[in-house]
Amino acid sequence: MRQGIDVELREVGLRDGLQNVDTFFPTVAKIEWLKAEAAAGVPEIEACSFVPPKLLPQFTDCLEVLAEALAIEGCEISALIPNLKGAERGIAAGVPVLNYVTSVSETHNMNNVRRAPAESVEDFARVVELVQSQPEGKRPRLAAGLATAFGCTLEGPIDPKAVVKLAELFVAAGCDEMSIADTVGYANPAQIKSVTKMVLDAIPSDMPLALHLHDTRGLGLANMAAGLEVGITRFDACLAGLGGCPWAPGASGNVIMEDAAFMLEAMGLRTGIDLDALVKVREIVEINLPDKALGGAFAQAGAPKGFRPASQLPAAAE
Amino acid sequence: MRQGIDVELREVGLRDGLQNVDTFFPTVAKIEWLKAEAAAGVPEIEACSFVPPKLLPQFTDCLEVLAEALAIEGCEISALIPNLKGAERGIAAGVPVLNYVTSVSETHNMNNVRRAPAESVEDFARVVELVQSQPEGKRPRLAAGLATAFGCTLEGPIDPKAVVKLAELFVAAGCDEMSIADTVGYANPAQIKSVTKMVLDAIPSDMPLALHLHDTRGLGLANMAAGLEVGITRFDACLAGLGGCPWAPGASGNVIMEDAAFMLEAMGLRTGIDLDALVKVREIVEINLPDKALGGAFAQAGAPKGFRPASQLPAAAE
Repeated sequence: MRQGIDVELREVGLRDGLQNVDTFFPTVAKIEWLKAEAAAGVPEIEACSFVPPKLLPQFTDCLEVLAEALAIEGCEISALIPNLKGAERGIAAGVPVLNYVTSVSETHNMNNVRRAPAESVEDFARVVELVQSQPEGKRPRLAAGLATAFGCTLEGPIDPKAVVKLAELFVAAGCDEMSIADTVGYANPAQIKSVTKMVLDAIPSDMPLALHLHDTRGLGLANMAAGLEVGITRFDACLAGLGGCPWAPGASGNVIMEDAAFMLEAMGLRTGIDLDALVKVREIVEINLPDKALGGAFAQAGAPKGFRPASQLPAAAE
Repeated sequence: MRQGIDVELREVGLRDGLQNVDTFFPTVAKIEWLKAEAAAGVPEIEACSFVPPKLLPQFTDCLEVLAEALAIEGCEISALIPNLKGAERGIAAGVPVLNYVTSVSETHNMNNVRRAPAESVEDFARVVELVQSQPEGKRPRLAAGLATAFGCTLEGPIDPKAVVKLAELFVAAGCDEMSIADTVGYANPAQIKSVTKMVLDAIPSDMPLALHLHDTRGLGLANMAAGLEVGITRFDACLAGLGGCPWAPGASGNVIMEDAAFMLEAMGLRTGIDLDALVKVREIVEINLPDKALGGAFAQAGAPKGFRPASQLPAAAE
């Protein structure tokens, strides 16, 4: 965790938010979005996905976007990789953090990457080898992302033991950090606490663990607060809650970045984010996705009268 | 708490949800709504407000609505009273629970009922006297509602000590139960926990304490989950999140009943509510408020695959 920040929010809108959007979000606008959000203080941004461009044409401009993103100071840039091929591309592009995503749900993983989860870990082990074969200073950190960890639209409930087992496999294979994802918005606060605690108990105590939450059924922020209760301090979020199904307008995608940042700042937890500047970034999304209904209660309602965000309070001695 | 229920959700849409709606919601539709929601298993409904009809014409049909509401079996009916006059009307109507609402914010209370909060408690003491002078069996329970307990649009932050002081005054004056309200959606989970704990410490341990939450900045359910963390098991909510400002469509009013019930049931906490039946009640609101955008993520997304609500699981030994 960088100094002066209590909870790290990572913007995943440029990846998870855009991957289901058919409209091509112009490259210059992606770069504008990245820069504006970094300038608002967001400490980490997942800038794109190395899923093959023929599957997700939204990311054909991945290298152009990354070239600009990596030049931004003070904001960590990551990218999603689905397999070894993606890792090769990510390393070549010089991305410092690569997120390798595998579904705990066997059916979901088969559908997504045509492999069983355990086979994905074998592929991941080859990614680790590849990274270790790079010269020092050119080795990205590898994050293992455990998708559908709280339920799956294809399989329904997911056994927490399967989450723990997959987490252990990834640790054994050599991941540097981990995230567990409520990919389809099935989780509830009690489940977040119990599953997250099980995973925390199974992985090394110094391994960063993040939560990736969706707001599909309105529980995104309640689940984030539940994560805080068990000590999680790293969360993914999307500006305007992008990432939802196109037929469900409003707050039904990823947990909403502006509302999450407001909640944390109101709770006295510093995110390093300037809320006003963050809300302004919505304009870039609005202009480029004019048919998309943007989610976000804080952006609509504004700050409470007399509100003092934690990041703007006099710093306590650290 | 009635048998077989872990958390009690009270529908306040017919009061808080409608009080800012200019369109008169037809009396028959109010009654239809009440009956449908009681049939869906909602254990308590605040059916109307005894604010003078010239101030809130929405409630001119209060007595007609109550006559039908009080005939419903298995659902507790309550009504809001702003003053002694309201109490007289409520007692005459035979309402079993009367909610006397006072703002912790002096400015807000002056604006609402033209009295300082402490003067409201003096008025409340006369309400208690009036109730005690009634023949046994005709004495309603009196709930004290502490509005703007987590912040006020006029005053900004509210000192938790003022909340505790007002709570103590109401206890001394003889209230039977209490609720603390985030009237304008300013609260955050950390604040909910700290203020609620302070109030719990100040009131008798056997006095029921409820939370009344708004979703204005998206934190409604996170705040409800925070309330659960400190032992609160009674919450107000509004079908479709009614109660928001007319210019902010969607999830910006009271905490959304359907999403709240889903969250609790998913957490293994029985509400006694049938979620499918509850979602159907929205049709009554849709038909009668066609221009109102209804909030509610659960109603849009539906239940997770394989979802088993707590109320439908085999009962554990009690």
